Amino acid sequence: MTTSLPAWGRTQTPASPLGLHRVLDPPGVLPQAAWRLDPNPAIAPDEVRVRVDRLNLDAASYRQLRETYAGDPDKIRSAVLDIIATRGKMQNPVTGSGGMLTGTVEEVGPASPLGLQPGQRIATLVSLTLTPLVITDSLYRWDTKSEQVPCEGHAILFARSIAAVLPDDLPVPLSLAVMDVCGAPALTSRVVYEGAVVAVLGAAGKSGSLSAAAARQSGAAKIIGVVPNEVEAALLRNPRTTQDGGAEGPATGVLPRPATDLRAPQSPLVDEVVIADARDPVGLATKVQEAGGPADVTVVCVDAAGCEGGAILSTAPGGTVIFFSMATSFSAAALGAEGLAADVSMLIGNGYVPGHAEFALNLIRATPTVRALFERRIEQ
Amino acid sequence: MTTSLPAWGRTQTPASPLGLHRVLDPPGVLPQAAWRLDPNPAIAPDEVRVRVDRLNLDAASYRQLRETYAGDPDKIRSAVLDIIATRGKMQNPVTGSGGMLTGTVEEVGPASPLGLQPGQRIATLVSLTLTPLVITDSLYRWDTKSEQVPCEGHAILFARSIAAVLPDDLPVPLSLAVMDVCGAPALTSRVVYEGAVVAVLGAAGKSGSLSAAAARQSGAAKIIGVVPNEVEAALLRNPRTTQDGGAEGPATGVLPRPATDLRAPQSPLVDEVVIADARDPVGLATKVQEAGGPADVTVVCVDAAGCEGGAILSTAPGGTVIFFSMATSFSAAALGAEGLAADVSMLIGNGYVPGHAEFALNLIRATPTVRALFERRIEQ
Repeated sequence: MTTSLPAWGRTQTPASPLGLHRVLDPPGVLPQAAWRLDPNPAIAPDEVRVRVDRLNLDAASYRQLRETYAGDPDKIRSAVLDIIATRGKMQNPVTGSGGMLTGTVEEVGPASPLGLQPGQRIATLVSLTLTPLVITDSLYRWDTKSEQVPCEGHAILFARSIAAVLPDDLPVPLSLAVMDVCGAPALTSRVVYEGAVVAVLGAAGKSGSLSAAAARQSGAAKIIGVVPNEVEAALLRNPRTTQDGGAEGPATGVLPRPATDLRAPQSPLVDEVVIADARDPVGLATKVQEAGGPADVTVVCVDAAGCEGGAILSTAPGGTVIFFSMATSFSAAALGAEGLAADVSMLIGNGYVPGHAEFALNLIRATPTVRALFERRIEQ
Repeated sequence: MTTSLPAWGRTQTPASPLGLHRVLDPPGVLPQAAWRLDPNPAIAPDEVRVRVDRLNLDAASYRQLRETYAGDPDKIRSAVLDIIATRGKMQNPVTGSGGMLTGTVEEVGPASPLGLQPGQRIATLVSLTLTPLVITDSLYRWDTKSEQVPCEGHAILFARSIAAVLPDDLPVPLSLAVMDVCGAPALTSRVVYEGAVVAVLGAAGKSGSLSAAAARQSGAAKIIGVVPNEVEAALLRNPRTTQDGGAEGPATGVLPRPATDLRAPQSPLVDEVVIADARDPVGLATKVQEAGGPADVTVVCVDAAGCEGGAILSTAPGGTVIFFSMATSFSAAALGAEGLAADVSMLIGNGYVPGHAEFALNLIRATPTVRALFERRIEQ
């Protein structure tokens, strides 16, 4: 593990926990804002090198590449290789987005605070847009038909990077899907208190269902799950009824779930299911009210614009709205609360809370209804 | 005060605290989203009617009107009258924005929770975009050279509208300037605790200086004021040195300030003045660190895009960032915190906190340095 020290000693650049020492161009910016990073495999004392086996491209980036090259696999592969070779990271220059990766820990610097051990299989929870990366194969195993890119190469984690060990007891696609939204249940758990009335907008989705499970665990007195239509409502009432056929047989790469988990009786994920358009403030607030609201805590997981007013209006004075949807408009929330004279705290959903991945994985282990919802979405 | 009851009784529409009963087109939306409101002067039991004497048009709306009509006073006056007559409110259909108004309380419904009395001079703190309004004069007193529109007419406040009584001891322009940003110090005061290190980005501005004063009152151990250049730094160090000439003589309509207030010794508004570009995350965080940071609470009052990363990086783990700038990007804040693995709470600055106007007016009375900063900006 000390082989890497001389390399950084020679450069005279002290390692930065944020990876500033890896920024080549323009100097001084954060790695995410940089055009080019230094993916030198020699690690600083607080860094970790990972042997990469798969990139998971961000959906927007993958779509842009596929459309630009009209689905031509060779051109798409070259484009990705070219971006990584040029920039030292996989950040699509058009969309600005990245993705995440999985791999095996290869070398851990003696001062790394990440607690990783060589040989562990991990997923990075920070974006590829700030992760130094080298690809050494031709991506020949990637048919370019999905954003999952099997590959060979290495990546560097900084002291302040985030990575999670992939658990042995869960299928990798399920773990990745959970980790992708793991900030939401962790922050919900912090905010919800014993006896709180909680409304979850988009409760049948990935971040929504995990947030509902987190709220339950934090002692919520009542959980109101809001969904846009009857299909989602049925799913939320009983995630298993609608998928009885396929879910019993394990899909390729999916471990069979223990039958005991699936059959064990448990409290429902939500206490009230409300069908409403979250973009209609008065309609939503009225229905949440009828279902036992207003909410002390409203969790917004609907990936649609224009839900700020409804969330605010569904929340009791002194309550809190947590916005996890990336479609949230800062000014619509700020001005909406002012226009409604609503004394509510409004939190920007931070994707990072210490221990968030482990917390979310434990929730999915403990909550078969949420697991069933996830598996349904992964299969689709 | 009961003369108005029959009018609403006849319409069979129960009054809504949000003013839904005043929405004519399209039905069911919030007043702000409506194309047309009913400005009938007969008030519902929980409403208040105000005799309007002045509109303060939103800057964006005023600029659009002036540019569209090439500064022609007659055309600008007709355009404003036409908008108000058509929509029942002053919401510029191009910019979507409104403004605020001042006037005198004329009639208070018996069930109004606003605590107003007939004869009180008030300013509305909710936008004109949701306030039913009728103008009865030709705006002949408005020279259209400023966004201040002297006028005659009436406006309606709902149960959940916000209005503040204009104080007798402060000049109206000063009170209006304070009320315009009064949400910031109120929320800062809630978040800051005894012994906290507080960084205020944009500390020499209106919301920034009031937030610094609020942080001081809440017992902050150290206040770091961040400004973009030496001019603002000098202003923050001593707001009075640079304006000795003009400020001594009262401007038109501005009451003379009591000399005792101005001369009284007091603790400085901030403990450390830092000159930094808030859009440079590493540069900002380094300078805040050197000045005694990281901050437990960072208050963002810089009206420029791209300050999210710097604010997050200047904040200690477990700390809070309050974003008041309307230039804040929700996704930049959410993804920025995740990319930096920053365990910080991020609050959307809600412009409404109960009692915010009175709180801010008291701060300006008690803090001559902040008052001097405000008066400087009003005079410019």
